[in-house]
Amino acid sequence: MSSPSLDELIQALTCLPGVGQKSAQRMALHLLERDRPGGQRLQQALALAMEKVGHCQRCRNFSDTDLCNICSDNSRDDSLLCVVESPADVLALESAHAFRGKYFVMLGRLSPLDGLGPEQLGLDRLEIILGEDTVKEVVLATSATVEGDITANYVADLAEHHGISSSRLARGIPVGGELEFVDSGTLSRAFAGRQQIK
Amino acid sequence: MSSPSLDELIQALTCLPGVGQKSAQRMALHLLERDRPGGQRLQQALALAMEKVGHCQRCRNFSDTDLCNICSDNSRDDSLLCVVESPADVLALESAHAFRGKYFVMLGRLSPLDGLGPEQLGLDRLEIILGEDTVKEVVLATSATVEGDITANYVADLAEHHGISSSRLARGIPVGGELEFVDSGTLSRAFAGRQQIK
Repeated sequence: MSSPSLDELIQALTCLPGVGQKSAQRMALHLLERDRPGGQRLQQALALAMEKVGHCQRCRNFSDTDLCNICSDNSRDDSLLCVVESPADVLALESAHAFRGKYFVMLGRLSPLDGLGPEQLGLDRLEIILGEDTVKEVVLATSATVEGDITANYVADLAEHHGISSSRLARGIPVGGELEFVDSGTLSRAFAGRQQIK
Repeated sequence: MSSPSLDELIQALTCLPGVGQKSAQRMALHLLERDRPGGQRLQQALALAMEKVGHCQRCRNFSDTDLCNICSDNSRDDSLLCVVESPADVLALESAHAFRGKYFVMLGRLSPLDGLGPEQLGLDRLEIILGEDTVKEVVLATSATVEGDITANYVADLAEHHGISSSRLARGIPVGGELEFVDSGTLSRAFAGRQQIK
């Protein structure tokens, strides 16, 4: 090869998910040929993120500071707590602008076979928040899988223990979804959860 | 958003070709959640490449030094010079292990409308190499397009001027290609270039 630094850059880029040898090569050549400022910006952003980003001590989401921007935002509703599995879920919910309460990120879901119990999900910390008497409703936004359901039930029990009601995100036909392409499991959930037209 | 550094990392990742907002988010979360050493390695590789990688003064390929590793490799055949359009072409030819001569990278192809003339392609530098009297054959490995053909003809004329013969990569059916799926242009080239079985 003509340039060891280029080779190393190509190899380093393959650590990104979904990026193989060919894509990494294309990315490296693109940065060097056409977008060196972009490459420098990426390098600085990586350095900053790898050094600064830790977890919020309250909600366990990614944060630059001890308390993340969402937890320290007083304009958000303290009485609603949305429990999610991962930081990606928070990003998805935030970009939908559907929720103005606070979050708790479990960084996983209950899966005893993988060694993920209540402790690994930080549910002891969740109990401290629930015990503070500010939360009036826990919104369970776990994924619609067996493990997600089990985790949601577990957290709902915790909330009930503190006299707090829980809710789950609605299951049904996705917006824009054509009925004929919706799977039968979703269809039966949509039937069971049908709502009266007022 | 919970972490400004994470946001900046996501934005910076979108400068990579083929990476949109969603992929960038997945990459950033992957690096932070599961592969911080990979992120650090990528950051260092980027810093090194952006600082070190320039162009070889002889062949115009990417290089960490004034003379690239291929140009300064004495075990390679000086009498064969392969003229290609981009560093990516060199990587492709090198990984095929089909060529043990040296390269000249034009960093483009003749395209007067885009302001790409002989000067922009460094053909003056190519003429200096051709005038050194070491090259016996110029192998034209430009792309199989109209502009690629025109560029190849132009370079072949230059070589002839110095009394050096030129050749082009063979056109025909790709290895592993099924005849029925080969386009008609390729088929007619394959017919015209048919070779006798010895």
